[in-house]
Amino acid sequence: MSREDRFLKACRREEVDMTPVWLMRQAGRYMQEYRDLREKYSFLEMCKIPEVALEVTMQPVNRIGIDAAILFSDILIPVEAMGIDLEFTEGRGPVINNPVRDERTYKTLRPIEPADVGFVTDAIKLLRHELKGKVPLIGFSGAPFTLASYMVEGGHSRNFLTIKGMMYQAPGLYDSLMNLIADVVVTYLKAQIDAGAQVVQIFDSWVGCLGPDDYEAFAMPYTKKITDALKGSGVPVIHFANGASTYLDKVAAAGGDVIGVDWRVDLDRAWDAIGPDKAIQGNLDPVALMAGQDEIDKRVRSIVKKAGGRNGHIFNLGHGVLPPTPVENVKYLVDLVHEVSLRR
Amino acid sequence: MSREDRFLKACRREEVDMTPVWLMRQAGRYMQEYRDLREKYSFLEMCKIPEVALEVTMQPVNRIGIDAAILFSDILIPVEAMGIDLEFTEGRGPVINNPVRDERTYKTLRPIEPADVGFVTDAIKLLRHELKGKVPLIGFSGAPFTLASYMVEGGHSRNFLTIKGMMYQAPGLYDSLMNLIADVVVTYLKAQIDAGAQVVQIFDSWVGCLGPDDYEAFAMPYTKKITDALKGSGVPVIHFANGASTYLDKVAAAGGDVIGVDWRVDLDRAWDAIGPDKAIQGNLDPVALMAGQDEIDKRVRSIVKKAGGRNGHIFNLGHGVLPPTPVENVKYLVDLVHEVSLRR
Repeated sequence: MSREDRFLKACRREEVDMTPVWLMRQAGRYMQEYRDLREKYSFLEMCKIPEVALEVTMQPVNRIGIDAAILFSDILIPVEAMGIDLEFTEGRGPVINNPVRDERTYKTLRPIEPADVGFVTDAIKLLRHELKGKVPLIGFSGAPFTLASYMVEGGHSRNFLTIKGMMYQAPGLYDSLMNLIADVVVTYLKAQIDAGAQVVQIFDSWVGCLGPDDYEAFAMPYTKKITDALKGSGVPVIHFANGASTYLDKVAAAGGDVIGVDWRVDLDRAWDAIGPDKAIQGNLDPVALMAGQDEIDKRVRSIVKKAGGRNGHIFNLGHGVLPPTPVENVKYLVDLVHEVSLRR
Repeated sequence: MSREDRFLKACRREEVDMTPVWLMRQAGRYMQEYRDLREKYSFLEMCKIPEVALEVTMQPVNRIGIDAAILFSDILIPVEAMGIDLEFTEGRGPVINNPVRDERTYKTLRPIEPADVGFVTDAIKLLRHELKGKVPLIGFSGAPFTLASYMVEGGHSRNFLTIKGMMYQAPGLYDSLMNLIADVVVTYLKAQIDAGAQVVQIFDSWVGCLGPDDYEAFAMPYTKKITDALKGSGVPVIHFANGASTYLDKVAAAGGDVIGVDWRVDLDRAWDAIGPDKAIQGNLDPVALMAGQDEIDKRVRSIVKKAGGRNGHIFNLGHGVLPPTPVENVKYLVDLVHEVSLRR
C-alpha cells in the first residue's frame, strides 16, 4: 500500500496495512535544516515565499519518512488577509497591533478572496508537483474561536478575559466576528482544496479555555458552519480541539471526519466519546519524545493497543513537536508506529 | 443551620439547608482591602506574619459572607522549609534559585518539623480564636507533583520538560523526591490540623500536564500516601487536581473526601466519574465573574441544577478568583448560590 493511500484510507476508516503517522509541527525548530533556513528568513517570510514554504514542508518528508506532509504556514495567515496587523516577535509569539474589541475595529475587517492568499495556493501547487503522490498533502486553518481569541486578545492569552468578556457583554459583536471568521476560513480552506490540498485540518488550539456549555454556545456553531460547507468537497477534514478532551462528544458534533485528541485522555475512552463513525488522530505526549527509546516504545505500544486494530487511527502527537526534541527520536517514533501496527 | 455546620456537613455528604460556597483565592488582589495591605508588606511577609495572614484571611469572611475561611498562605511555603531558596517576583511569579535537578541538590533537602512552619500554625490558632465558630477554617498544601514541578523547573513552566525529563530519565531520583515531598506534606497538614484547621485542601495545580497513565504512575501514589496518612484525623480532605478532568476517576482514587473540579467539565458528568461516595467542589469559570449579573445567574443556576439537590456539593470556582473581578459580583455570586439552592 502506498503511503498516500495509507493516510487517506485511514481518514475514511478503511483498512490499511499499518497505522499512518504524521506529527503536528513536524517541520520546525527541532530540525537543523529548519534552523539553517530560519537564519535567512523571518518566520512570516518562510510562510509567504512559496519556494521556502515548499522546502520547509519537505524537510520532514525527506528526513523522517512520515505518511503525510502538512503545508508549512501559520494559523494566523487568513487573519492577516482580513486586515489584521500581525507581527511575530521573538519570545512573545504573535502580536496583533489592532486588536478587535469594538464595533469600529470590527468594521475595518474584510472577507478574503482566494487571491489574497495566493502565496498559500502557490505553495500547495508546488508541493503537489514535488510530492508526486509520495505522501498526501494536508492544508489547514485555525478554527474560529482560536482565530478570534488572537484577534481580540491581541496575542497569546492566559485567562482569555477579553474574548470571554466580549461573549458575555457584547454577544452580537462576538457573533458577527465569529461568523465573518467562519466565512473566511471556508474561503481559505476551499482555496487550499482547489489548489490541491488532499486533507484539511482545523486547529482549535485555545478552545480548551471554554467549559462544555460555552463551547456549545460560543465555538461549536461556527466550526460546524465550516465543516458543513466542506461536505461534498471530497476532502477529509481533521478537527483538533486542544484541551477539549472533557467534551469530545461536542467537538465531534462540530464536525470533521477525523477528530484529533490531545494526550490528556486515553485514546480508547476518547474514541468512545467521539463515536465509531469518526476516525481519531493522536495522542502521544510531545514531551515523551525527550525520553529514551525504551520509554517511547512503551508509550507507542500502549496507544496502538488502545486503538485496538480498529480502522481509522492516525498516529500523531497530542500537540506539536517541541523545539528541543531529538530528531533521531522522531525518526524512531515513526518507524516504531509502523512496526508495531503492521497488520500481518 | 450555622455556616460552620453547613460547610462541614457538605464535606461529609450530609444534608444541609443550602449549598455552601467559598472561592479559591477569595482573599486576593480583587479586594481593595487586600491591595492596601499589600502595599505595606511583601507577599511572603503577608504569609509569614501571623497577624497579617489573619487579617487577609478575614477580609472575604467579613466582606463577602462566604461559608468557609481559607488560611492565607502559599502552596510553596513547605518547600521553603525543606531548604528551597524561594523568591516571589513581580510578574514572573515564584522563582526558585536552587532548582532540584540532580542527586546532589536533592541531598541538600530536609524533611520538615512543625516548628519550621510555626508562623502557619500560629496564624491558624489566631484565626480559630477570631472566627469563633462563625465559619470553618480550611488549611492547605500543594500536592507532591505540583510542588516537585516548581522545585525541578525552578518556577512556572509551559511544557514541564524538566520534571517530565526527570520522570523518564531518572525515575529513582524522581521517586525519592516525590516521597520526601509527600512526607513533608503529611507533616505540614497534620501540624495545621493540630493547630485547628477543620478541613484541608490539597492543590494539584499543574498535574493536568500529565496524561492519564502518567498521572497514575507518577502523581497518584504520592498524593494517595498523603490522603491515607490523614485518614483517621477526623478532618475532611478536599483534593483539587486542576486540568485533570479527563481522568477524575484516578484523581478520586488518589483520595480525598471532596474532589474539586475545574470548569472544563459538566458537574454532573464529573460527579459520575468521581462516584457517589465522594463530595464534589466546583465549578464556575472564574472569568464568568467578569460578566453581568444575568450571565452569572444563568451559570450558577445551571451548576446548582447539575448538582441536582444531591448531598455533598460545595460551590466554588473552577480556579482562583482573578484580580480584575468586581467585588460586587463575588458578593452577588455567594448570595445567589444560597438563594437558588435553598431547600424549602
